[in-house]
Amino acid sequence: MQRAKKAKKDKDGGVAVTEKKGPKDGMISITPRSEDYNQWYLDVIDAADLVDEAPVRGCKILKPDGFAIWESIQRLLDPKIKKMGVRNAYFPLLIPVEFLSKEAKHVEGFAKECAVVTHHRLRAKTGDGPPGVEVDPESQLAEPYVIRPTSETVVWNMYAKWIRSYQDLPMKMNQWVNVMRWELKTRPFLRSAEFLWQEGHTAHATKEEADAQARQTLDYYVELAQDELAMPLVPGRKSENERFAGADETYTIEVLAQDGKAIQGGTSHFLGQNFGKAFEVTFDSEDQTVEYVWGTSWGVSTRLIGAVIMSHSDDDGLVLPPALAATQVVIVPMFVKDEEKQATVTAAAEKLRDQLDEAGLRVHVDLRFKMKPGQKYYEWERKGVPLRLELGPRDLDNGVAFAKMRTGGDKFNINLGDNAASEVKESLEKVRQTLRERAEEYKKRLTVEISSREEFDERLAARETGLMYVPWGGDNDDEDKIQEDTGATLRCYPFEQKPMPDGQLCPLTGKPAREWAIFAKAY
Amino acid sequence: MQRAKKAKKDKDGGVAVTEKKGPKDGMISITPRSEDYNQWYLDVIDAADLVDEAPVRGCKILKPDGFAIWESIQRLLDPKIKKMGVRNAYFPLLIPVEFLSKEAKHVEGFAKECAVVTHHRLRAKTGDGPPGVEVDPESQLAEPYVIRPTSETVVWNMYAKWIRSYQDLPMKMNQWVNVMRWELKTRPFLRSAEFLWQEGHTAHATKEEADAQARQTLDYYVELAQDELAMPLVPGRKSENERFAGADETYTIEVLAQDGKAIQGGTSHFLGQNFGKAFEVTFDSEDQTVEYVWGTSWGVSTRLIGAVIMSHSDDDGLVLPPALAATQVVIVPMFVKDEEKQATVTAAAEKLRDQLDEAGLRVHVDLRFKMKPGQKYYEWERKGVPLRLELGPRDLDNGVAFAKMRTGGDKFNINLGDNAASEVKESLEKVRQTLRERAEEYKKRLTVEISSREEFDERLAARETGLMYVPWGGDNDDEDKIQEDTGATLRCYPFEQKPMPDGQLCPLTGKPAREWAIFAKAY
Repeated sequence: MQRAKKAKKDKDGGVAVTEKKGPKDGMISITPRSEDYNQWYLDVIDAADLVDEAPVRGCKILKPDGFAIWESIQRLLDPKIKKMGVRNAYFPLLIPVEFLSKEAKHVEGFAKECAVVTHHRLRAKTGDGPPGVEVDPESQLAEPYVIRPTSETVVWNMYAKWIRSYQDLPMKMNQWVNVMRWELKTRPFLRSAEFLWQEGHTAHATKEEADAQARQTLDYYVELAQDELAMPLVPGRKSENERFAGADETYTIEVLAQDGKAIQGGTSHFLGQNFGKAFEVTFDSEDQTVEYVWGTSWGVSTRLIGAVIMSHSDDDGLVLPPALAATQVVIVPMFVKDEEKQATVTAAAEKLRDQLDEAGLRVHVDLRFKMKPGQKYYEWERKGVPLRLELGPRDLDNGVAFAKMRTGGDKFNINLGDNAASEVKESLEKVRQTLRERAEEYKKRLTVEISSREEFDERLAARETGLMYVPWGGDNDDEDKIQEDTGATLRCYPFEQKPMPDGQLCPLTGKPAREWAIFAKAY
Repeated sequence: MQRAKKAKKDKDGGVAVTEKKGPKDGMISITPRSEDYNQWYLDVIDAADLVDEAPVRGCKILKPDGFAIWESIQRLLDPKIKKMGVRNAYFPLLIPVEFLSKEAKHVEGFAKECAVVTHHRLRAKTGDGPPGVEVDPESQLAEPYVIRPTSETVVWNMYAKWIRSYQDLPMKMNQWVNVMRWELKTRPFLRSAEFLWQEGHTAHATKEEADAQARQTLDYYVELAQDELAMPLVPGRKSENERFAGADETYTIEVLAQDGKAIQGGTSHFLGQNFGKAFEVTFDSEDQTVEYVWGTSWGVSTRLIGAVIMSHSDDDGLVLPPALAATQVVIVPMFVKDEEKQATVTAAAEKLRDQLDEAGLRVHVDLRFKMKPGQKYYEWERKGVPLRLELGPRDLDNGVAFAKMRTGGDKFNINLGDNAASEVKESLEKVRQTLRERAEEYKKRLTVEISSREEFDERLAARETGLMYVPWGGDNDDEDKIQEDTGATLRCYPFEQKPMPDGQLCPLTGKPAREWAIFAKAY
């Protein structure tokens, strides 16, 4: 995107009028999903005004309507994190380069895409060029830092200091922060150089307890993503190839987009003793022995917003589960010529707002009387507001508001009066249920069992590939080869495993099948 | 601080037991304020376990009990920000170096203390040294970035794109983020290279509206810091010398520490059209002219936590206003030998906790029965928990808990039963009031009017300098000279101005006095 406007100073130092270019509200048309799914995704985000390009390579700005979705995720997830006995903390943005080296796989996973801080001062430009500032070469740091791509190394460096005995365990911390990975190809929410996330880091006395923590976290991610955000997903275990760099197991929720591709929605890692050993984190056990500490780490990022958009939105624009929507209910009082009647209608709308607001709902009253109702409805639909309430003089006489759900269906009445808030809450719950049902429907439609390589290739060539359940018998190399040949990846071994028939062979490798694995194309 | 523990691998690759060193819970003694105020401050923070040294120069880790205070500030301040019609957003961490140059004073203010990102990749170390990673020289960026020291430049770069007409104004955004200034001398909370803050950025059609916004924000900062956090402070206007780099006016709250030094607790800037002009942000007015946009920016940071600690804590450790405390009430059920009675007491404590919890209070039950009551009380006092409730079998028979406020005074009864929560809330409000009264008391004691240079120098030499009201007539150079000679700075021109007597001369410069100014030593 270009800066759409430039004002140029005239000779007197005043400002000359310049032409105005660029998109205006209501002017962005949304490409239908059937025509171009990728463009549809970008259009939905543009039309809802969620992000903009930052003047930094690979970075996006979260505009207020986009950031509000992240605030909702924080509001929903933070209490779950605290329920597990995890406490929020703040670790530094910068990580000494040598820290990264300590865990061999970890550094391999992250060294190639790090923003590196090497200097600590700018100076006035030297030379004949235009004035400005430049890096002061005399301010070079003896030891450079990377901007955290994730914080295991700095957290475990501190855990080495804080953990002495079994009485200090478990130690459970989380932080809501920005991280940076120097990505080349970006896509709003799904991939960008800087993104926001929460990262939990826990330390435990036993393997079992650490693994249970990693699994429990994933259960909470499922509760958030599947129940509250109504997304279609499969929880499971990553293959060795796809594990987090430094983990012994990675658990994942794989969300299914409407176009049949998978999106990793959140991961939880059982780290074994890898970081315990790399950072020499030991504890005196109850039996008076000294043991290495077991660890987990886990995170959900702004990527989840991309998954939500891909799960629920339609050709009219953004659709948001009520739990996420910045505005859950918009009240549109009708324009009335008679001033007195208008005042009555407006007052009723504002009273209703206060009532819903008090019940803990997020409500907005649209008082733009000069705008046509159709235009307003169009706009609120594109912004994904789950429920719209229209209020005219006749409705008011009947003691009702006229309601419309973002998920469609006929308009219906909400009774004004004491029960209005509970009726509205019921309607919002219906919106969530409808999204949930639709999600399950298309997940069912896009889930297949693969019995031959031919079938596998056919699905890959199809418009919508979906989740392909394969009775898998391959090894890491087989998995790599399939990815190279087809672009499909082993998304996870689903926790819910159908019994494997005796003597079943893997249709992709011909080897004896060990476990059901899901292959898919992925974002 | 040193890593207190090291485990060394023995020859078998197992772990050898090593000695444990370093401070243990309850072992940090707190230096009295009267002895060494600076050491007292550090000891209070250590004893309450709020921060630790990060392995990054000049950075601190906010441990859970420290970060919880910041979470409380967010919980209190964010709704006030939203009440002003400001919405949260997220702008990128990195700022192109050329952006900083656009506003002349701004770059002067920040260029000398910036973390600069120059590369985007690490590689395996070359050469004969030990293995590891190093900066890959081939990944040098064509244009380096600084880590935001503040975000005016990147925000106004976007405002240039987003603002077209008066209908887009005012535009009001805020972000809760980390920022970085390469500080040499650090002190926990008060000064560190990286810190957390909120930064608000607003754009307006008129000078008056922008200035009113900057003032309104400061009023909310006063509400937070003085009313809710009970701190002694003076709101006012900064002198030209002390203004934010790029502002036409800076409004400030100057908090008074117990040792008579000032701490800048929060600032709000009226930016004039400086950033509007630097980034060519114009709008079509209602009168069809094109005008530069007026701006404000304002922020409160983790520094406020340092001010709170310095305002209220005592020689027994941390004292927190109830609104900030991570744990507002600790319930300590007594140890009873009789198992059945113990169960009854514990159950009553947990019932009380649930009751208070339901009423929105943050409560903890201390079930460490092996620990002596005195030791527990000592610990909770050091952690600054505002109210302690003790519960034994006899209290239970009497239907009461035995209460003690962190601010002192006799123990008293809280009646169990339906009114317990409201009685507890009353007690917490009393704690706040006590802190408020004490704060006003010492502010009164440490505020003086200066009528001669001699008196000024005497106060500066005194143990507690305090806030020195000076009928000021000096210019910028006079102000600089006083700072050079004495270390005292002009903290602000207080909004509340006593009438200036006719013909009053400035006792420091001999020039005609213009306005009352506060001079003080400052953190």
